[in-house]
Amino acid sequence: MSINDLGIVRRNIVRADRAAVDQLARFGVATVHEAQGRVGLMKPYLRPIYAGAHACGTAVTVLMHPGDNWMMHVVAEQIRPGDLVIAAVTADCTDGFFGDLLATSFKARGAVGLVIDGGVRDVKDLTAMGFPVWSRAVSAKGTIKATIGSVNVPVVCAGATVNAGDVVVADDDGVVVVPAAVAQQVADAAAAREANEGEKRAKLAAGVLGLDMYNMREPLAKAGLKYVD
Amino acid sequence: MSINDLGIVRRNIVRADRAAVDQLARFGVATVHEAQGRVGLMKPYLRPIYAGAHACGTAVTVLMHPGDNWMMHVVAEQIRPGDLVIAAVTADCTDGFFGDLLATSFKARGAVGLVIDGGVRDVKDLTAMGFPVWSRAVSAKGTIKATIGSVNVPVVCAGATVNAGDVVVADDDGVVVVPAAVAQQVADAAAAREANEGEKRAKLAAGVLGLDMYNMREPLAKAGLKYVD
Amino acid sequence: MSINDLGIVRRNIVRADRAAVDQLARFGVATVHEAQGRVGLMKPYLRPIYAGAHACGTAVTVLMHPGDNWMMHVVAEQIRPGDLVIAAVTADCTDGFFGDLLATSFKARGAVGLVIDGGVRDVKDLTAMGFPVWSRAVSAKGTIKATIGSVNVPVVCAGATVNAGDVVVADDDGVVVVPAAVAQQVADAAAAREANEGEKRAKLAAGVLGLDMYNMREPLAKAGLKYVD
Amino acid sequence: MSINDLGIVRRNIVRADRAAVDQLARFGVATVHEAQGRVGLMKPYLRPIYAGAHACGTAVTVLMHPGDNWMMHVVAEQIRPGDLVIAAVTADCTDGFFGDLLATSFKARGAVGLVIDGGVRDVKDLTAMGFPVWSRAVSAKGTIKATIGSVNVPVVCAGATVNAGDVVVADDDGVVVVPAAVAQQVADAAAAREANEGEKRAKLAAGVLGLDMYNMREPLAKAGLKYVD
Amino acid sequence: MSINDLGIVRRNIVRADRAAVDQLARFGVATVHEAQGRVGLMKPYLRPIYAGAHACGTAVTVLMHPGDNWMMHVVAEQIRPGDLVIAAVTADCTDGFFGDLLATSFKARGAVGLVIDGGVRDVKDLTAMGFPVWSRAVSAKGTIKATIGSVNVPVVCAGATVNAGDVVVADDDGVVVVPAAVAQQVADAAAAREANEGEKRAKLAAGVLGLDMYNMREPLAKAGLKYVD
Amino acid sequence: MSINDLGIVRRNIVRADRAAVDQLARFGVATVHEAQGRVGLMKPYLRPIYAGAHACGTAVTVLMHPGDNWMMHVVAEQIRPGDLVIAAVTADCTDGFFGDLLATSFKARGAVGLVIDGGVRDVKDLTAMGFPVWSRAVSAKGTIKATIGSVNVPVVCAGATVNAGDVVVADDDGVVVVPAAVAQQVADAAAAREANEGEKRAKLAAGVLGLDMYNMREPLAKAGLKYVD
Repeated sequence: MSINDLGIVRRNIVRADRAAVDQLARFGVATVHEAQGRVGLMKPYLRPIYAGAHACGTAVTVLMHPGDNWMMHVVAEQIRPGDLVIAAVTADCTDGFFGDLLATSFKARGAVGLVIDGGVRDVKDLTAMGFPVWSRAVSAKGTIKATIGSVNVPVVCAGATVNAGDVVVADDDGVVVVPAAVAQQVADAAAAREANEGEKRAKLAAGVLGLDMYNMREPLAKAGLKYVD
Repeated sequence: MSINDLGIVRRNIVRADRAAVDQLARFGVATVHEAQGRVGLMKPYLRPIYAGAHACGTAVTVLMHPGDNWMMHVVAEQIRPGDLVIAAVTADCTDGFFGDLLATSFKARGAVGLVIDGGVRDVKDLTAMGFPVWSRAVSAKGTIKATIGSVNVPVVCAGATVNAGDVVVADDDGVVVVPAAVAQQVADAAAAREANEGEKRAKLAAGVLGLDMYNMREPLAKAGLKYVD
Repeated sequence: MSINDLGIVRRNIVRADRAAVDQLARFGVATVHEAQGRVGLMKPYLRPIYAGAHACGTAVTVLMHPGDNWMMHVVAEQIRPGDLVIAAVTADCTDGFFGDLLATSFKARGAVGLVIDGGVRDVKDLTAMGFPVWSRAVSAKGTIKATIGSVNVPVVCAGATVNAGDVVVADDDGVVVVPAAVAQQVADAAAAREANEGEKRAKLAAGVLGLDMYNMREPLAKAGLKYVD
Repeated sequence: MSINDLGIVRRNIVRADRAAVDQLARFGVATVHEAQGRVGLMKPYLRPIYAGAHACGTAVTVLMHPGDNWMMHVVAEQIRPGDLVIAAVTADCTDGFFGDLLATSFKARGAVGLVIDGGVRDVKDLTAMGFPVWSRAVSAKGTIKATIGSVNVPVVCAGATVNAGDVVVADDDGVVVVPAAVAQQVADAAAAREANEGEKRAKLAAGVLGLDMYNMREPLAKAGLKYVD
Repeated sequence: MSINDLGIVRRNIVRADRAAVDQLARFGVATVHEAQGRVGLMKPYLRPIYAGAHACGTAVTVLMHPGDNWMMHVVAEQIRPGDLVIAAVTADCTDGFFGDLLATSFKARGAVGLVIDGGVRDVKDLTAMGFPVWSRAVSAKGTIKATIGSVNVPVVCAGATVNAGDVVVADDDGVVVVPAAVAQQVADAAAAREANEGEKRAKLAAGVLGLDMYNMREPLAKAGLKYVD
Repeated sequence: MSINDLGIVRRNIVRADRAAVDQLARFGVATVHEAQGRVGLMKPYLRPIYAGAHACGTAVTVLMHPGDNWMMHVVAEQIRPGDLVIAAVTADCTDGFFGDLLATSFKARGAVGLVIDGGVRDVKDLTAMGFPVWSRAVSAKGTIKATIGSVNVPVVCAGATVNAGDVVVADDDGVVVVPAAVAQQVADAAAAREANEGEKRAKLAAGVLGLDMYNMREPLAKAGLKYVD
């Protein structure tokens, strides 16, 4: 992002096509990540606060400074139903930027979850509310409200670029970002990828080896693999 | 701590006022931490061994050397009902200093839990016993009994100073220390802090924005925040 | 391992005696680790993908390169019922080398679990299948199939040497390796170790102190421990 | 980046204005980072391979997969004199993607250095050559040439977005990215920032306190700071 | 520390006896740490910004919040010649709290160095000035001046408690704290420890084994050590 | 290693052929690692205590427990001129197991250096002595002498298996282990690998691209790489 994006709240963003979002919501993160060529994955240090968490929504982004969550209140106003908030911080910080009061507000606005490259607190309450959060840490450490950041500018969150309106899918395996412009294309690729998984799974369950199912024996031999007794 | 605290077991410690401890037990770690001015929090690398763990008690402290849990047996004798054992190590170490036998002993003495800046093992048994532990690691690595440490001297545990008798509150969000001398003061501040949270939560749930509830629009504008379309 | 072990699949391996394996399966990792003199433990960064996971089996080993899971299909063919797959990587890598399709195949071959010094994905499915995995990370990141490694050569996995046929025990506390040649010896030592644990636990639960049960007061005093009021 | 940027080499990129680059080259990373509003800094885990390293150039970017440096040869052809190569990897990897042969090639093409979110090797030779590299690790681990990535697409390197043509400044303090479009603006801000540093330094060296020079006493008192004896 | 220490600057502190400080300055960190019973050492993640850095002084302490270095200017006024500034932060943070301007001020006040459980920048300038700093990171990331902390209250820095006036010794091996009350006692113990090191070194250099010089053969045999061919 | 290797000192070990060791000493770690098929590398967290450190020798191994360096004195006696000591620890530990006195002894015995998967201290003295050490940390933390380990048994050090007598090469790029049995084979492969490096380097320096020198354009195109303007 540029210096000219600092201290800015973009109100009008173009969200990914809802139909594409809904289709992407049917797939897991691993499938979506593969379907878009193995890019767009956030770092695996982001973990869900409870097992079984799953969310898929359009990104509203917020950029904060370490130890300062003022912009969380600013981004709340920009949330539309179906959005997933993506919170980035300008330097590594595990402080608890988000807790049950903000979650109540986000939920009331229609947010389907939060992905934050920082810490979160009140995880027991958030779990009880069923409000899923993916974070780099759980920490009770409080934050201040002193410095402004930006809302709906492009951010880097846990190693991935997110533009407002992009689709973000998150589950137990992590978090993946799909640019809005290719959401339908990736949804289609994901569907194609899953189309014959059932058949493969049945074969493997029946004892067929991947070596045979995928015809790997010849390329492995060519690569030099040798069997010895 | 000083060289003169080495190899010492203090038997008579002044525990925080029980009424204050009981009041603090009603609050979560985040609230207590905020109520005492955002200090006293242990590092977020300490994690509970099971979700939903919660404990509040008066600290008995033990200082051990890496890979040596001899003093765990010494501290057991100093436990009084309602105490929470705080275990520090003189250098980073993830070995399993504590397991189900020691937990059985601690529980019999009335301990309400353990916070250890080291590793723990037998976590399945500890979970079944309902004995909560916050630790930096889970590790089966055994320890020796060769070097003495100290009991009830001031220690640094996961970045926070703990004096014997201090109040320690621990839950899913982490661990916070409240010095005995200010326990009642902090309990009162925590109560005041929570007094109007219900009202705030209701407003936020109804869709009121924090921006308006906290009157943030003007200070944000003064700080330079700009809205663009 | 040596350069001559590269690109090799050993088909005939000598698995540890089944009776010894079955006996070791009755003990937790901490007990087995202690019983063999506190060696053979993998690093505590390996964590089970779900609480309560437990596995004990004979090792089939696979060595892969970072970001390449081709050999997972090769090792599948070498699995015999009761085996536990031990996957090592030649450099630190958190990519998702393993997911639900491979788990279906491994399970069909009789594998009792996987220990991998890398990442795993589809953890929700694996949990639903009851297929236990101990890994250094959960990550959706996909891998390629370009470079051969080896199967059933000696590997280093999370800091421990594993030879094909060794016994590996894994539970909530971590993972321990028992060389095949000493499996029975270690099983006997583990049994001896646990024989009187029940009695000890009863005493401790009744309030007897470890200080007295283990006669520690005199050696502690000799080591210089001083009690002060 | 999007799936449509995969496997692409962009040959024609718009490099930041040379005059602005030359001006930015006169400032340290800390100054540039401050001048552009405290954004654009890469994570501090990137370290120079030798003390005193300094580079400022226009970015040519390369995206690689873990353990695969094939694209390093592709990016070499796109280097123009004054460029600084920015190498990103799709997942965390410390392998040695770059060594003295590639450095010889990069240098021959006019590169002024390399910033890589991965490992580097032959650091003794690189130091002798005076070819500066900022990396996340030093590692002899070799890489393969099996999977294509992209050149001159937008990448995330050590937490910062880099577009081909952006200005990158690197020194002992780290690495900062300045978008091409604001290069002159940031250069001017940096110059303004440094203009009166000499005067400040002289005052501080003479014993004047920052408290007085920056008129901080009143705001500190307002914030509640209290002096006690 | 307690809530009542927040927002406080203690002006009158009792510094350790100068003669003891001067004696401690003659020893390395390892010797001092051993001499006081192996306590008081800061975590090894603190590293000097240049090789050969060495400092010994009386502690003035400062407690800051993450990303906020306002108190650095407050502590500057409290520095007396021979002081070493010890900077703690209430949560882990690698931001650059300190650079060449503050170093100029600290040096003018007579400070002999800085130990900071956070980041530092302008390391090239600091090295040129010969102003030694031990830090957890080097980072150009700027900080704000919004929240007050405290000066000369007890702090925890990199795992060690420091009270204002304590002696702190720092060199290539790390940083150790000696409480003011025991400074002379520890200095004497350090001197005693070093007294016969020269003789030992000469013997070892001549090929005498530690096994013989320290009479270890018998205790090793008793502990069960066996020699095999 | 097995339980039967505990508490054992092997006196008679078969060291790799001296001629092969001398040949390997002429190559860097990266070359040797490549020459043996990209295995045997220790983790990159091991770093030399000074730039430019280089060592090649036959391994004598020592296994210690965390925080206990007793066996360092035992291994000293087993050192023969030209040996490199490889020190492993049964759990992660950064304590300072080794300092200038032990270095004096090791050097007197003919050791060419130390590789330790733990901490080291007195690094200024070691640097002055020119005794190279590769370690995971620098720490002044002292160790005890209470528990026996083993000497010249197979160990895992920083992720690599080392058998007594193996060749170990260490430089700025890291540490690599060559099994004694293949030392000559790997030395030959390293020599072959370096034979034509000079020619390649000259070509690259003259501006020839690796793309052309290695004939990569066709395979890259086949893999799908596309050039766009």
